[in-house]
Amino acid sequence: MFSRIDHIGVAVEELEPALELYRDKFQLTVAHREVVSEQGVEAVLLDVGENHVELLAPLDADTPVGRFLAKQGPGLHHVAYQVSDIEATLEKLKQAGLALIDEQPRTGIRGSRVAFMHPRASGGVLTEIVQPASGGETH
Amino acid sequence: MFSRIDHIGVAVEELEPALELYRDKFQLTVAHREVVSEQGVEAVLLDVGENHVELLAPLDADTPVGRFLAKQGPGLHHVAYQVSDIEATLEKLKQAGLALIDEQPRTGIRGSRVAFMHPRASGGVLTEIVQPASGGETH
Repeated sequence: MFSRIDHIGVAVEELEPALELYRDKFQLTVAHREVVSEQGVEAVLLDVGENHVELLAPLDADTPVGRFLAKQGPGLHHVAYQVSDIEATLEKLKQAGLALIDEQPRTGIRGSRVAFMHPRASGGVLTEIVQPASGGETH
Repeated sequence: MFSRIDHIGVAVEELEPALELYRDKFQLTVAHREVVSEQGVEAVLLDVGENHVELLAPLDADTPVGRFLAKQGPGLHHVAYQVSDIEATLEKLKQAGLALIDEQPRTGIRGSRVAFMHPRASGGVLTEIVQPASGGETH
C-alpha cells in the first residue's frame, strides 16, 4: 500500500536557520521551495536519497503549523507515505475504519495529491499519504 | 552524507494496538522485534519499501521513551538517517559544530551501529544516524 516514506515534515520558526542545518551541515540538496497558501506554510523540500525532509514555516501564527509551534515548539510535525494510487489507498483506509481528515485528495506541494489521517486514528502521529505529480516517482 | 531515511521512531504505550494499525491496517511487514535493554524499549521494525517504521514501547516509565510518553503522549519520537560510514559521518558532524549525544557509535537494533544528536542542535528533532549491520543496506 505504501511504497516508501515520502517525507518527514519538520515544523520550524524560520526557514533560513533550518536550511543552515539541513542544507549546509547535513549537506542535503534543496529540491523545491513553495508557498502553500492553503496550508498556511512556506515549505522547502530537501532530498535524502529517494526520501525528503519537508521544512514547514508558518505564514502566520494562526495556521496549523503556527499553532503547533506555539504548543510544542519546533520539531517533527508529520510523516508522509508515498502511494501510487491515492484514491484506491483512501478507499482501503476507509474500509479499515481509519478516520480521515481528507476524504478526497487535495493538492499538495509540487503538484502532488495528498490526504491526511486524523492523528487520533494513527496513534498520535499526523500521517499523510502522497501521490507524486508524476504518478509514482518523486523525481 | 545521508543515503536515505532509515526509519522514523514512533513512541507507543503498547505494541499490540500499534501493530494493529501499522501491520494490519497499513499492511506493513514486520521485519524484526527486539528488546533493546540499553535503550529501555521493546522495538518492532516494519518495512516501508527500503525505509522502516520503528515502534518503541518503554520497558518501564523511567526510561527515555517512558518519559517522552508521560510528557507529550504517543507520537513521532525521532528520525534516523542511514549512513555507510558512521565514524566518518560523526567526524563531519562534529566539524560542522553539531552537539552529539553519542561521540562514539553504540549498538542499535538488529546489530546496527547508531549515534544520536542533541535535539537542541537539530531544531528540536531527535536525530539519529544509523549504519546497518551489513554495512550499508537495510535488508
